[in-house]
Amino acid sequence: MDVKHYMAQLGAQAREAAGLLSRADTGAKNAALLAMARAIDSSREALIEANQLDLENGRNNGLDAAMLDRLELTPERIGTMVEGLKQVAGLPDPVGGITDMNFMPSGIQVGKMRVPLGVIGIIYESRPNVTAEAASLCLKSGNATILRGGSEAIHSNQAVAACIRAGLVEAGLPEAAVQVVETTDRAAVGELITMPEFVDVIVPRGGKGLIERISNDAKVTVIKHLDGICHVYIDAEADPKKALDIALNAKTHRYGTCNTMETLLVNSVVADLMLPELAKAYAEKGVELRGCERTRGVLSDAVAATEEDWSTEYLAPVLAIKVVDSIDEAITHINRYGSHHTDAIVTENYTLSRRFLTEVDSSSVMVNASTRFADGFEYGLGAEIGISTDKIHARGPVGLEGLTSQKYVVLGDGHIRQ
Amino acid sequence: MDVKHYMAQLGAQAREAAGLLSRADTGAKNAALLAMARAIDSSREALIEANQLDLENGRNNGLDAAMLDRLELTPERIGTMVEGLKQVAGLPDPVGGITDMNFMPSGIQVGKMRVPLGVIGIIYESRPNVTAEAASLCLKSGNATILRGGSEAIHSNQAVAACIRAGLVEAGLPEAAVQVVETTDRAAVGELITMPEFVDVIVPRGGKGLIERISNDAKVTVIKHLDGICHVYIDAEADPKKALDIALNAKTHRYGTCNTMETLLVNSVVADLMLPELAKAYAEKGVELRGCERTRGVLSDAVAATEEDWSTEYLAPVLAIKVVDSIDEAITHINRYGSHHTDAIVTENYTLSRRFLTEVDSSSVMVNASTRFADGFEYGLGAEIGISTDKIHARGPVGLEGLTSQKYVVLGDGHIRQ
Repeated sequence: MDVKHYMAQLGAQAREAAGLLSRADTGAKNAALLAMARAIDSSREALIEANQLDLENGRNNGLDAAMLDRLELTPERIGTMVEGLKQVAGLPDPVGGITDMNFMPSGIQVGKMRVPLGVIGIIYESRPNVTAEAASLCLKSGNATILRGGSEAIHSNQAVAACIRAGLVEAGLPEAAVQVVETTDRAAVGELITMPEFVDVIVPRGGKGLIERISNDAKVTVIKHLDGICHVYIDAEADPKKALDIALNAKTHRYGTCNTMETLLVNSVVADLMLPELAKAYAEKGVELRGCERTRGVLSDAVAATEEDWSTEYLAPVLAIKVVDSIDEAITHINRYGSHHTDAIVTENYTLSRRFLTEVDSSSVMVNASTRFADGFEYGLGAEIGISTDKIHARGPVGLEGLTSQKYVVLGDGHIRQ
Repeated sequence: MDVKHYMAQLGAQAREAAGLLSRADTGAKNAALLAMARAIDSSREALIEANQLDLENGRNNGLDAAMLDRLELTPERIGTMVEGLKQVAGLPDPVGGITDMNFMPSGIQVGKMRVPLGVIGIIYESRPNVTAEAASLCLKSGNATILRGGSEAIHSNQAVAACIRAGLVEAGLPEAAVQVVETTDRAAVGELITMPEFVDVIVPRGGKGLIERISNDAKVTVIKHLDGICHVYIDAEADPKKALDIALNAKTHRYGTCNTMETLLVNSVVADLMLPELAKAYAEKGVELRGCERTRGVLSDAVAATEEDWSTEYLAPVLAIKVVDSIDEAITHINRYGSHHTDAIVTENYTLSRRFLTEVDSSSVMVNASTRFADGFEYGLGAEIGISTDKIHARGPVGLEGLTSQKYVVLGDGHIRQ
């Protein structure tokens, strides 16, 4: 197969479908989502069969246990896919909403209408449930999608794709509204990210390596999510109970998520008070502590932190701790070593809370709340296609609105420009 | 001079200045803008002297009359720069505004705060007044700027830059908040658009060739403005007077602007009625008409339009005219041949106006108004750094808000995630 030609064909089909989809009414889109849910629900056997094939190949190819786990479609995960589709059907449709319609001095009315972006390319790794999830968010926001999953999940993804197509057809929407790339040739990714005539945005979902590669080579905008090196800063005026709760929750609620705290900053005024108590709580959870010199002055058991620790996303029960003398030192550290993802201050001081919110350059800034809240669902977006660590277009958790844009709408009554 | 090293130095200085600028209060930014205005006003002699040098070099290097005109700094144009700076000082500051702050079921409050993008690179051609204009918009929106003007305007741009620096210093803002590239080496552009560590967005202002080159090579987001192939569609139910006024204004108000109509679509039902009257009005203005076969059936004097005419931005007193049978044909033509810039329908029909607004995929869609209204000032933005024909981040006229982004702000009271 000529991959270039094949991808261009998918692209042209997607572009055409996007035109139709952009004017599809909410009812049709919801009907398609519900039909997809029914199709997946009634194809459980076929899905598990296809998944078994992928799992078998994976085991033969020596995939590790974590990878095989992500690849597996359990009955529970299929149920989650079905529920997810129903939930997206229940979300408000962002497309077509008109805001800020005002009269101008010339007499024209000017407002903004929310519109789909067009064609969205999704590149993801082993988890086959992303296929349904990403497709549903793009569909609801009126975008056509080209999905390129990991080669290790090709049979599972194709089985899910069949259900998606069945749903589209049942609702009278174009089949090419959601297309799953059928070749495992790696060149397909290279094509997908370099055809701006057919693809408007790329959303990569996967490890940092994948996202960096794609960002480097892409010729279209990438909504990217790099690392989450999140901080909690315990200020001198922190409430000790809140500080303990938040520092513990931000690190230990889940270790592998991007909004997990990786570095704890503690004001020197409260270091003697807070650190031993924190260390005890972390020890109970089995968290390894790596401290700066002053931290180790209080916690002699802590490992010595190296320069590298300040910019490491552990995704593991490991925490770097640094004692700082002021909010200025904390903010400077966060803006320098952090990943502009999510950072929190614990303080009862009004002025410092205001400074932290303004001066920390991250997609989510928090006062007296755990970094673990940085999440599309917790923010009320109803869905999440990813968390953008970029500043352009979408920043932080990206929901349906992040998959749309706004065009200007002008209403006149024969108005001409003077 | 080592251009790579020099540009990296500008970049690092801009990045540092951006940090300070992002927290500069509105008063300081306005004071700087007003000080810049005073500095330019009191440096008229030096500005004109520097400009004379550029004009002389330009004449020696054989620049054409249009280019020399754009290059010239007349006393009137200097006055416009001064006024422009004062006007930007008078605009509301977009930075720091918090919106949509709501309580979530978990008890946290979540809202969005408007923040600067960081460092903006501006690449422009001969007009030296762009230096002050672009710098002022970036400064007001809290961004640091690196400006790279055309080599033919280097002395004028440096003279303007000196005034800008004086204003920054007077207001106590970092001098590196606005930097004008001092080398005319073309490699500087190549560096500027490929240092994502120092530059967040590129705004190219100039011809299509420049913008396409930059978009192709850039490693950061480009807010681009390609052609303006704008349409007016006169529907079967158009009010003839409004149709005539709008079709005339959209074409003849100014020929060289991107929101000028380049193709007129006329419904076949009213072609016999409208075309002769339109042709008479255009003839009086000296506009050459290029028609499809059916147009030439009514207007035998019109030149035969070729396929190329439908996708040509004339920027001249030339108009392509096509007779269509329906709104569907009109919309299909616009979405296919247009540049997604600005398109208008003239109709009294409610349903068709609604369809046009929804289905035409352009940054501005209009009903019964001239395409010439597509402009930041006419839209009430108070300023305009360009008109984006892109869908990502900013679409249509881009004002101060288009130079900002939003981060999430979360307020809790010791909240942890369950």
